[in-house]
Amino acid sequence: MSAQRRIYLDNAATTPLAPQALEAMLPFFTQEFGNASAVHTWGREAKRAIEAARRQVMRAIGAQQPQEILFTSGGTESDNWAITGTVFAKGKPEECHIITSAIEHHAVLHTCRWLEKLGCRVTYLPVDGYGRVNPADVEKAICPETVLVSVMMANNEVGTVQPIAEIGEICRARKVLLHTDAVQAVGAIPVDVNALQVDLLSLSAHKFHGPKGAGALYVRRGVKLANLLNGGAQERGLRAGTENVPALVGMGKAIEMAAEDQADNAARMTALRQRLIAAVTARVENVRLNGHPTERLPGNVNLSFDGVEGEALLLRLDLAGVAGSSGSACTSGALDPSHVLMALGLTEAQAQGSLRLTLGTDTTEADVDEAADRLAPIVADLRKRRY
Amino acid sequence: MSAQRRIYLDNAATTPLAPQALEAMLPFFTQEFGNASAVHTWGREAKRAIEAARRQVMRAIGAQQPQEILFTSGGTESDNWAITGTVFAKGKPEECHIITSAIEHHAVLHTCRWLEKLGCRVTYLPVDGYGRVNPADVEKAICPETVLVSVMMANNEVGTVQPIAEIGEICRARKVLLHTDAVQAVGAIPVDVNALQVDLLSLSAHKFHGPKGAGALYVRRGVKLANLLNGGAQERGLRAGTENVPALVGMGKAIEMAAEDQADNAARMTALRQRLIAAVTARVENVRLNGHPTERLPGNVNLSFDGVEGEALLLRLDLAGVAGSSGSACTSGALDPSHVLMALGLTEAQAQGSLRLTLGTDTTEADVDEAADRLAPIVADLRKRRY
Repeated sequence: MSAQRRIYLDNAATTPLAPQALEAMLPFFTQEFGNASAVHTWGREAKRAIEAARRQVMRAIGAQQPQEILFTSGGTESDNWAITGTVFAKGKPEECHIITSAIEHHAVLHTCRWLEKLGCRVTYLPVDGYGRVNPADVEKAICPETVLVSVMMANNEVGTVQPIAEIGEICRARKVLLHTDAVQAVGAIPVDVNALQVDLLSLSAHKFHGPKGAGALYVRRGVKLANLLNGGAQERGLRAGTENVPALVGMGKAIEMAAEDQADNAARMTALRQRLIAAVTARVENVRLNGHPTERLPGNVNLSFDGVEGEALLLRLDLAGVAGSSGSACTSGALDPSHVLMALGLTEAQAQGSLRLTLGTDTTEADVDEAADRLAPIVADLRKRRY
Repeated sequence: MSAQRRIYLDNAATTPLAPQALEAMLPFFTQEFGNASAVHTWGREAKRAIEAARRQVMRAIGAQQPQEILFTSGGTESDNWAITGTVFAKGKPEECHIITSAIEHHAVLHTCRWLEKLGCRVTYLPVDGYGRVNPADVEKAICPETVLVSVMMANNEVGTVQPIAEIGEICRARKVLLHTDAVQAVGAIPVDVNALQVDLLSLSAHKFHGPKGAGALYVRRGVKLANLLNGGAQERGLRAGTENVPALVGMGKAIEMAAEDQADNAARMTALRQRLIAAVTARVENVRLNGHPTERLPGNVNLSFDGVEGEALLLRLDLAGVAGSSGSACTSGALDPSHVLMALGLTEAQAQGSLRLTLGTDTTEADVDEAADRLAPIVADLRKRRY
């Protein structure tokens, strides 16, 4: 067993950096180390590089102008900024109402909870058994105080893709801003800010084979946001802090590649996903697929195994050389059952018995078959010990 | 002139990444790409690496426990978090009073201005002609509502080092928290959180030959902070967002080296600084050294040239292959005179005619002499054109 091949099926937590992105980054770690806000040659070279990256991000998500792309340190900062920035731009938290869903990432939910403490009113929309928000529920929840609707594009745990374009149409008609956390969506499914009719969109480089520590917030022209980070005049005064030049360059390269390869990767990964689901259900009884059967991220498999505790399963899988996850990496170690699975209507026991396996662009049929082979006896053994 | 040697004298804006730091980072861009919050092997390897980096930062600044070091995306985030986190942990902004100085970095000043809009009361202490805060002024400004004193350790423009230990003693006696922005100080002068008696301290990796996009906030055990970034459970739930593993590893290596070499580098750079000041004043008349003659950062030279416009000087210097700065990189491009130089009592014309040249660990005597040689005729020419 010691020489066994390691199989990485936790691509929703983070993806390996694309070698081409690393190659693009390296000069900015060495000779081109300038501060992009400095006015001399070193600075101008750095500035030129991040502006090229900005246009790469712009094109990948169908934005109209480079200024609509604002760089951040990652998806969490983008989500926090979109929500608190909207509230503080509109006025006082106690005068504002936000609509979001029960299955958002904690970067959205915990930001909303914090704003609630400051007096903001928040509606948490329910989802159906597949994890889908009903656009009619959004429409019903909108009131004169509503400043923002925030619904994620695709769920990080169960992979369910939301009807954002429909929600976008409602928000536009009602003149309410729409934010979507597209951290799991970019590179995986088509993302076009105009087709989606979103005003704010969060993305994170390390989810599409870019580096950690880089993200962006798309802000539609004309949308006013208060700063989350105050200080220097970077990002036209909207987001202070020295620009992370190498990481932004890596993000630009990675998103360009991800957009280019999206359709091919999605087709291949969808087939692999179905193969993995079939392989596991052929080898293991009493398995439940969580999330939507078809309206889901190409690479996402989320399964509940009756009578199995998820953390134990994960640890045994890890010993067997397979990296998976229960819920999101951001909450690993937490003993509470996943808020997402509970919102889908699972029992606490079912939610605790869940496993997320997320495929990557380099996952093969052999990986998928081998993972199922290693998984089946572990589930059987855990069930035997339990009963 | 086209083959002339380029001389980088803008190390206060950013420093070149230490090759040893890059070497330490590289594995985490390739095979060790895991999410540090994931529970499998990949995740544990990443977690181990960032915890080692945390201990490197802890040791470099004399902290007592690894938990006192919280990772951020850089100095701006650390400053924003220290200030807003203290205010929101204490209660409502309108119940809080903050004391800071007139010459803080904008990451501090603009955060204070934002809190003022929310009802917080802020006292901006004046400085003397050298840019020093009088500790007695801090004592006088403390009132029952004071929740925080924030005074930088060393100024980014003029290099003046503040009497933080004295201010720390006052704050401790009056039971008021003390934050210091040590972004320019770490690696340049001794930084020990206990000798300084500070409760919160900001640092930024790219100022001491670490990578951009990584920083830390020292938070003394027992000090309560509200989150700036809400979301996942990273950093014990205090700072959400996927850990930037490679950058944190690079910061750890860089701060270890910076602390080790600090005394040697400071001695060498102080001598170079004096050599540069002497070389310029020998070649140019009517030059003023801004900031304190001795209580200043080893590598900082800030000069005002009567009758010369700083931006024009900078551009001409850049064409001559010398990278310098007027004010901080974060405000470059702004037409307002430096708030720091104005607080020191300079006239607007003097402030507009200032030049910051900041030495690095690899700056040589030849660099300094050559820079002065190139600078002198440019100043003379600009003065001729003006009069």
